[in-house]
Amino acid sequence: MNLPLGYKYSSVYAGIRKAEKDDLGLIVSDLPANAAGVFTQNRVCAAPVKLSRAHLKKSHGSVKAVLVNAGNANCATKTGMDVATSSCNALAKRLKVDPEQILPASTGVIGVELDGQLILKALPQLLLGLSGERFEDVATAMMTTDLAMKISGREIGRVRIAGMTKGAGMIHPHMATTLGFIMTDAVLEPRHLRDILDAAVNQSYNRISVDGDTSTNDTLLLLANGASGTKPNKKDREAILGAVTEVAVDLAKQIVRDGEGARKLVSIYVVGAEDDEDATKIARAIANSPLVKTAIAGSDPNWGRILSAAGNSGVAFSQRKVNIDFQGVAVCHGGLAMEFDEPDLKAKLDSPDCEILFGIQGKGKGKARFWTCDFTEKYIEINASYRT
Amino acid sequence: MNLPLGYKYSSVYAGIRKAEKDDLGLIVSDLPANAAGVFTQNRVCAAPVKLSRAHLKKSHGSVKAVLVNAGNANCATKTGMDVATSSCNALAKRLKVDPEQILPASTGVIGVELDGQLILKALPQLLLGLSGERFEDVATAMMTTDLAMKISGREIGRVRIAGMTKGAGMIHPHMATTLGFIMTDAVLEPRHLRDILDAAVNQSYNRISVDGDTSTNDTLLLLANGASGTKPNKKDREAILGAVTEVAVDLAKQIVRDGEGARKLVSIYVVGAEDDEDATKIARAIANSPLVKTAIAGSDPNWGRILSAAGNSGVAFSQRKVNIDFQGVAVCHGGLAMEFDEPDLKAKLDSPDCEILFGIQGKGKGKARFWTCDFTEKYIEINASYRT
Repeated sequence: MNLPLGYKYSSVYAGIRKAEKDDLGLIVSDLPANAAGVFTQNRVCAAPVKLSRAHLKKSHGSVKAVLVNAGNANCATKTGMDVATSSCNALAKRLKVDPEQILPASTGVIGVELDGQLILKALPQLLLGLSGERFEDVATAMMTTDLAMKISGREIGRVRIAGMTKGAGMIHPHMATTLGFIMTDAVLEPRHLRDILDAAVNQSYNRISVDGDTSTNDTLLLLANGASGTKPNKKDREAILGAVTEVAVDLAKQIVRDGEGARKLVSIYVVGAEDDEDATKIARAIANSPLVKTAIAGSDPNWGRILSAAGNSGVAFSQRKVNIDFQGVAVCHGGLAMEFDEPDLKAKLDSPDCEILFGIQGKGKGKARFWTCDFTEKYIEINASYRT
Repeated sequence: MNLPLGYKYSSVYAGIRKAEKDDLGLIVSDLPANAAGVFTQNRVCAAPVKLSRAHLKKSHGSVKAVLVNAGNANCATKTGMDVATSSCNALAKRLKVDPEQILPASTGVIGVELDGQLILKALPQLLLGLSGERFEDVATAMMTTDLAMKISGREIGRVRIAGMTKGAGMIHPHMATTLGFIMTDAVLEPRHLRDILDAAVNQSYNRISVDGDTSTNDTLLLLANGASGTKPNKKDREAILGAVTEVAVDLAKQIVRDGEGARKLVSIYVVGAEDDEDATKIARAIANSPLVKTAIAGSDPNWGRILSAAGNSGVAFSQRKVNIDFQGVAVCHGGLAMEFDEPDLKAKLDSPDCEILFGIQGKGKGKARFWTCDFTEKYIEINASYRT
């Protein structure tokens, strides 16, 4: 992957998590980058989310660095805002920029005090380690229950785009999700970045679910430092929007494939709804149904659960017009059971990639894509003892 | 339990489910009973739900019998309405009443044809078996993944109330749930039954969740045949409403305690919200969070997940005003971590009864009770292979 020009990366083990793996990451843009961000819509949100929102506003979208830690969400703690603020201030001083040009991000357990001294002590080593090559080190340092590092990139002419993300549980983004950082070296104004990010998020992070729980720390940032010297015109910006969306979809799907305990990526397509909003509601209801997700875990072609979940979506549709395909096999037509080769379909459902097509007969043009994962015993095992 | 006067019960094995356990149940009122029913709000609903709704309307709430089968939901099948209609017609003929005085109910797998001949052939034996004592046989015949039979009763003066219900999964009632039949021998008009049932359901079945999935077959009926000869005045009706609500709450809690794979009944109390509706939304969000439910499975006092789930409820509240008690132990005060004895609380969470109190400081008078269960590996095991 060719990385965008003008960014440096570093990571260290600061001692925030018990396991001795890097838990503090840093992304620095040589020249301040223009930036846009989307954050969790959870009413309860973490100190770094509040501070990042405030910093972006105060700096009018000018960002020098992103400081990210894993192992502690810095949420619902007494010292949360102090820790986030003092970390940004100390880093800003060393980078000789304004504190509002630093965006903090945290992920990990909620309600446990984060020791700010650990971050302050680690900063010198973190800065010493900065390199244009250490992109994957940051992507690795922010992993929590993730089993796989998640990165993605695209090139559009001379413009490069590279993104990293993390997340495996508490994944049901609404306007944003988990942590994700997408960098480009194009010259882009904050208002264009905002449009690009909103459009990309709506097709990617807002279309995935692992467990229907929206995190308190979700943050997705798009940075553009202009280091490529390429200033896209309107048409070029559309190509960049397409490429950023592809990167965001790629990253979001990696999160779902790495969903806690998941063995399968489930792609849900809804067509024939009245509009895209209705289609998305139906897709989301199917994606969040534990009964659909456990059936897929067991390779059980129990399409009645898909129909029932759609019926709970709040969208009005006629049961008699519903067609359902499971792995390309028609299992339900006009709301009724189709004959199908059950052992054959069960075998097809053993694939790591499963596909559900939910179609409503008629003239409706509404459609939606959504991604989820199967729901296995391992999810329970992971989450029954995450904290201890 | 003293059963209401004037009802008879029967059950047989009709061969609808594979396991040779009774799968067809019958409740007959000696004199036609007045009745009210609430049914699933799922857009997709089963033939017996549609037919019961139509019969109640046509008969103006006069019910002679309830015919219930387990092992097949009679939903999303070609012959569904024919099977439900012909069963009611045949039974009505034998009981010498109008078909609309028979209410059918089904529970089991969706999308598999139900062989109506099995029911027709079983009717003679079913009728022969009618007895005033076989209440529990019907409660047992309608069990699917239930491990325990679920019944409850109360007496108010000379009036008796007895209810039975079933359900362990696909439980997230909205206006109704699963199957439940509550009988009384009071003299009550349909409009009073309607009011009593609506009030009772709102405090019971609409306040439970096992997995957040609302079934296609939910049906709850309240029958009053007047056999006690007691005609309650307005004050008496309030006492009956209270007793019916107690029966409904008792039945609903039994469903949750028997939730698929559940080892614990979790009671959630929300106080201090603006109004009861907001309180219910918060309680429901906590009850439906897989992360809260898995933490309880692991006896992990991870209250951050409770706070996060509440933050996703769509209700506006100030994080700084939240107090959370877990098993009577204050774990969060003013939105921040409290010091508590973690091994002690973990031990307390091993109890089969867990309690979450979510309070918002201030003058809000809104409150709600809600019940859910823990989420264990066993739920996945049960649901990954329910159909096959």
